[in-house]
Formats: sequence, structure tokens, C-alpha cells
Amino acid sequence: MADEAVRAVYDDIMATREVDWVNNFWKVLAHDPALLKRTWEALKQVMAPGALDPLVKEMIYIAVSATNGCEYCTYSHTASARKLGMSEAQMMELLAVVGMANQTNRLANALRPPVDVQFEPRP
Amino acid sequence: MADEAVRAVYDDIMATREVDWVNNFWKVLAHDPALLKRTWEALKQVMAPGALDPLVKEMIYIAVSATNGCEYCTYSHTASARKLGMSEAQMMELLAVVGMANQTNRLANALRPPVDVQFEPRP
Amino acid sequence: MADEAVRAVYDDIMATREVDWVNNFWKVLAHDPALLKRTWEALKQVMAPGALDPLVKEMIYIAVSATNGCEYCTYSHTASARKLGMSEAQMMELLAVVGMANQTNRLANALRPPVDVQFEPRP
Amino acid sequence: MADEAVRAVYDDIMATREVDWVNNFWKVLAHDPALLKRTWEALKQVMAPGALDPLVKEMIYIAVSATNGCEYCTYSHTASARKLGMSEAQMMELLAVVGMANQTNRLANALRPPVDVQFEPRP
Amino acid sequence: MADEAVRAVYDDIMATREVDWVNNFWKVLAHDPALLKRTWEALKQVMAPGALDPLVKEMIYIAVSATNGCEYCTYSHTASARKLGMSEAQMMELLAVVGMANQTNRLANALRPPVDVQFEPRP
Amino acid sequence: MADEAVRAVYDDIMATREVDWVNNFWKVLAHDPALLKRTWEALKQVMAPGALDPLVKEMIYIAVSATNGCEYCTYSHTASARKLGMSEAQMMELLAVVGMANQTNRLANALRPPVDVQFEPRP
Repeated sequence: MADEAVRAVYDDIMATREVDWVNNFWKVLAHDPALLKRTWEALKQVMAPGALDPLVKEMIYIAVSATNGCEYCTYSHTASARKLGMSEAQMMELLAVVGMANQTNRLANALRPPVDVQFEPRP
Repeated sequence: MADEAVRAVYDDIMATREVDWVNNFWKVLAHDPALLKRTWEALKQVMAPGALDPLVKEMIYIAVSATNGCEYCTYSHTASARKLGMSEAQMMELLAVVGMANQTNRLANALRPPVDVQFEPRP
Repeated sequence: MADEAVRAVYDDIMATREVDWVNNFWKVLAHDPALLKRTWEALKQVMAPGALDPLVKEMIYIAVSATNGCEYCTYSHTASARKLGMSEAQMMELLAVVGMANQTNRLANALRPPVDVQFEPRP
Repeated sequence: MADEAVRAVYDDIMATREVDWVNNFWKVLAHDPALLKRTWEALKQVMAPGALDPLVKEMIYIAVSATNGCEYCTYSHTASARKLGMSEAQMMELLAVVGMANQTNRLANALRPPVDVQFEPRP
Repeated sequence: MADEAVRAVYDDIMATREVDWVNNFWKVLAHDPALLKRTWEALKQVMAPGALDPLVKEMIYIAVSATNGCEYCTYSHTASARKLGMSEAQMMELLAVVGMANQTNRLANALRPPVDVQFEPRP
Repeated sequence: MADEAVRAVYDDIMATREVDWVNNFWKVLAHDPALLKRTWEALKQVMAPGALDPLVKEMIYIAVSATNGCEYCTYSHTASARKLGMSEAQMMELLAVVGMANQTNRLANALRPPVDVQFEPRP
């Protein structure tokens, strides 16, 4: 029965992405069919067309993965973003922002400027 | 002389952003005028119009800052993104991607699936 | 003399763990016998039976290592946890919690809800 | 309609946890009812009784949150763990493991010992 | 008896540092006298005069704390470093290195250049 | 033209470092000549002689890279530090501080001691 549940997710991954293979990330999750199903369904919803362009979402995914140093995730989402049309220039500009953000995050973490009242969150 | 160098950067920040104030991040950097100047000039280049939309860049900045837990940076770049037109729906969708990426990054870090040959980087 | 200090730690590692080999982590620390000894003795105390079950402690170790993306640590503590009886189902459920925590950590970092008074720490 | 969806999640949170209030984390997520619903339902499944003890899961949540430096998450999950019976001694022992893991993670990251064949993952 | 153990550590902290007060970090650790004692004794050894200058060690501590976003640690070790003579110029130059390292770490994490043979670790 | 810009940076890297080769990090950045140039020039300024000793700066770089788990950066800056004369004893002592800081950072993140007034930042 677990096998059927796994198979159903694999089929949905391939149908949704219009590919004929399943990448290794899903195969390691298949040790827990409920985790596999929950993770895939959440990912499918989160990455579906919405208020943001699909390529923008893949670029945000790369930004987080590079920041966390996740090798598998960086490779897989860079491949997805290229498939969606990310150019070499866009990739490099994305990384320039990621690098800059990581730099200023640490300057702010060390010097701890008080949050300006103009930046106060939701009123 | 340091004062003049600082003043010149402050003026450029206000002129570039079309605002009449300088936020606290730059004021704490002003303890080292060379660091202030270098950081501002790099940021100005990185965030200038290029291969990516300016709002996309601010959203990438938020993604990194939320991942790193930098309070000041999250507040300041959320404010910048809203000023560039980020809607509530876009903000929440951005965070959905950031949350999902942080989740799958750790699943991949723990289970270490081999990188699929299809994802191999630049040929 | 350094050799003797290293040898004494190696012997204690093997005796404590009831194994006849020393893993590579300790061998790289042996370049500094004082660091080797201090780290091993702290680890031995921290991981000894106490208020928490030994397997629970290994699972906490995995949670931190996956979050930090430490490859060596994830491998070695997953092996230790399996030796203490961690089942496949427990491993996957552990990772489900780790993934979820990393997701909600970033949602909280970005949206910065005020800490509810009910959660206020030690009175 | 969004209001109804939010209300339904709030009701489920209060019913599941047997409390009469909703903490601020869910209120900030309510800006995106789909994200709120997806996150709550995933959390409910992940934290439900399973192969691991509920208190063990809360302790794993604390371990990740302390590692990531998420203030809100540390407070809220420490409160949950205490409610489930975590003693002061267990809390401190948990943190001793978290501290030790963060220490050895960095020693391993810097010295990069090769992964011992004995630790090789799933056959 | 726990009280006596705690008192002995407090006395050693004050004697070692030649101050007449104990900072809050040690007070929260005192909930677990063994953790308090172990952490203090390890810290005392690690920060004692050795192959590196004491001020260099405090600056390394700040570098790690800023990278991890630990507010308490950044404040306390910045205070310690200033007491050891860290000038404003040294502080700002330290942060310039920390910022730069965090930037290039992420560029390397995303682009994954192969490690040059010239950089191969210990022969 | 991009080729010329890249060549000029490569020449400056080799001249500044007095070596006859360029390491892979710069080659992956060369996909974006402006990013390559900006990153190199910032790095050259940041790592130039100043208020801190050049070897101290390389050790700070290692501390950040080990904390972030950046494999390439750890290898390359360890090599640079050894070239500047870092002894084995200094390397191990550096890592002892890095490990200790990562440990206490998490204890502070979990227990959240209030910042002592004596540590209050710049007046």
C-alpha cells in the first residue's frame, strides 16, 4: 500500500512537470510515504502560478539554498530555473544580490542599528 | 576629511533613492568611511536596473534576510519592496517559497540524495 | 608525550563505545591533544545517561547537524542513532519535524510576530 | 470567504490544542489564508503522535530554533515542551547537546575528516 | 550543594576576569550546575593565552557571533574586545572581513567551483 | 570586451598575490565580469594591510567559512593562512575558539539572557 501511495506521488510529479523521471530527492523521501506526499503537495501549491512569476520563485529558492549551503538544492533549482528560461546574466545578477545580502546581514547583525521608525512593520 | 567622505555618501544615498533621510544602517557604517563608501557603491550597482526587475531583487534580499534571521535587514528590505509595489499577496507568496526552501534544504542535508546527472552544473 | 595523551583519549573512546576503532573526527582533532581531550570529555559527559534518553540525544544531534548542513556529523550521528535502535520510521519522522521547524523559523523571522505574553520565559 | 477559511483554521488550532486563544504566529500567517491552512495542517500532522514521543518532537523543534536563532520559535516551543512535562533538567540537558553539536559541526566543517566507511548511509 | 558548585564557578569567573560581577549568560546556565562548570572551564581554557593573541580570539568570537546573528554574544564579546584594546578602526576592519567572507561564501556555495589542487588540505 | 575586463582582473589577482595562476573561484565569477571586478576589488581592499594583521584577517575568514560550512572557502583561506605563516597550533586554537563560539551562541539563543547594561553598545 505504501508502494501505491509512492507510485501515485511519482506519477503526479512526472505529470505536473511533464518529465519521464523522478529525481533523487523524492526517492529518499519515499522512505516515509506521508512525508513524501505532504512535501510534494505543499511544493506543488507553493510553486504553482500565483502572485509571483514561476521563474522568480525558482530564483528565490536558489537564494535560500545558496545561503544555507545546500548542494543538492542549489543544483536542482538552478536546473529548474534554467529550464524556465533563466539566462546566464540573470543567474549572475541573482547571485550578486545574494552575496550582497549576506554581507550586509552580518554588518547589521554586528552593529545592530536600531530599526528606523520609517521601517516599522505592518501598521 | 572623513566627515566630507561620509557626507558625500549620504548625499548620494538620498539622491539615488529620492528621499531626504539616511537610515541607521549607513550611520553605523560611517564609523569606517571606506567601508561605508565601498558597501554603498556595491549595493547601488547590485540593485541598479539590470537583467532582473528591481522588485525581484528586493524580494531576493528579503529571502536571504529571513533565512539568516537578520531583523534590521528584514524590516528595511520589506519596506523597500513595498515601496516598489510589492502587494500583500506577493509578500506572503514569497515567504511561502522561503519557508518551503528552508524545509527541503534540511531534508536534503540529512538524507543526502546523490545529485542527479540531469542536474549537473554548467557543461 | 602528545602521543601518549592522544593514545589515552583513543583508548577511552574505544572503551566507552565498546568498539575497536576510532573515527576520523577524533583523528583530525588529534593535531591538538588538548582540544581532542576537552572535546571528547565534554561529549562523553553530555551524551551520558541523564535526564534524556540516549537515543533522544542522538536525534537532537542529527536535527542540529542537518540544520547546519554538516555532512560528516549527519552521517556519524545517524549511524550512532541507528545503533541505538532508531527505526526508519523514527528517522523520517525526526526529519519531518526538522523540516517543519526550519520552515516556520523563517516565516517567524520574516513576519516577526510579537512574542505572546503566554510564552514569556521563566518567571 | 477568506475570513471564514481563517476562522476554520483558528477553530481547529484551539480544538486540537484544547486552548481558547490563538498565538500570534498564526495571526501573521492569516494574511495568506492558503499559507495559514497549509502550514497548520502540515504542523498538525507532523506533531501528531507517531513513531516519536510528542515531547521528543518539541525538543527537536527547540534544537532547530536555537540553532537558527529564531526568538519567537524558541519561546513558543519551549512553552509547549514545558506544558508536555519537560523538566528544567531535561531542558538544560537538551541545550547541552545542542551546544555540543554546534561546536563539533564547526570543527568537522573546518577540518573536513573523510566520512568513515563505517558511517556510510543506507546500503 | 548545587548552590555551592554555582558559587565556586561564579567566584572563579570573577577572579579570572578581575571583575566583581557575573554576567547574565552564566546566570542562565546556572540552572544546570554541571553545564555551567563545563562551559566555563572550556571557555577559560580556550580563551587563555596560547598560540594566538587574546584580542585575536575575541575578534574571532565576534566574527562567529555576527555570522550566527547571536545578539547577546555580539554585545558581550564586543565589550570584551574593547576592554582588551580593540580600536574603532580594528572593529570596523574586522566587520569588513566578516561581511566579505559571508558574501563570497554564498557565491562559492551557489557556483560550486571545484577545489583547486593547490588548496588540497593537509598532505 | 568582456574578455579584456576579465583578463585585467586575472592579471591584477596574479600580480597582487605574486602567483602565476588564478583559482577557480574567480573563474566562476568571470561569467559576470562586473561581479568579478567588484568582488575582487572589494576583497583586495578588505584584505590589504590596515588596522589588523593580514594573518588575523585570514583567520577571521576561516572562522566565518567554517561556521557557514563553505567547503571551497575553508580550503582556500586555510591555504592562504598557512602561506602567511599560520602554524598548526594556531590553526587548532583558532578552531577551538570557533567551536566554543558556536556552542555558546546557541546556549544564548535558547536561554535568551537579557543583555547586561555593562555590555550596552556604543554610547
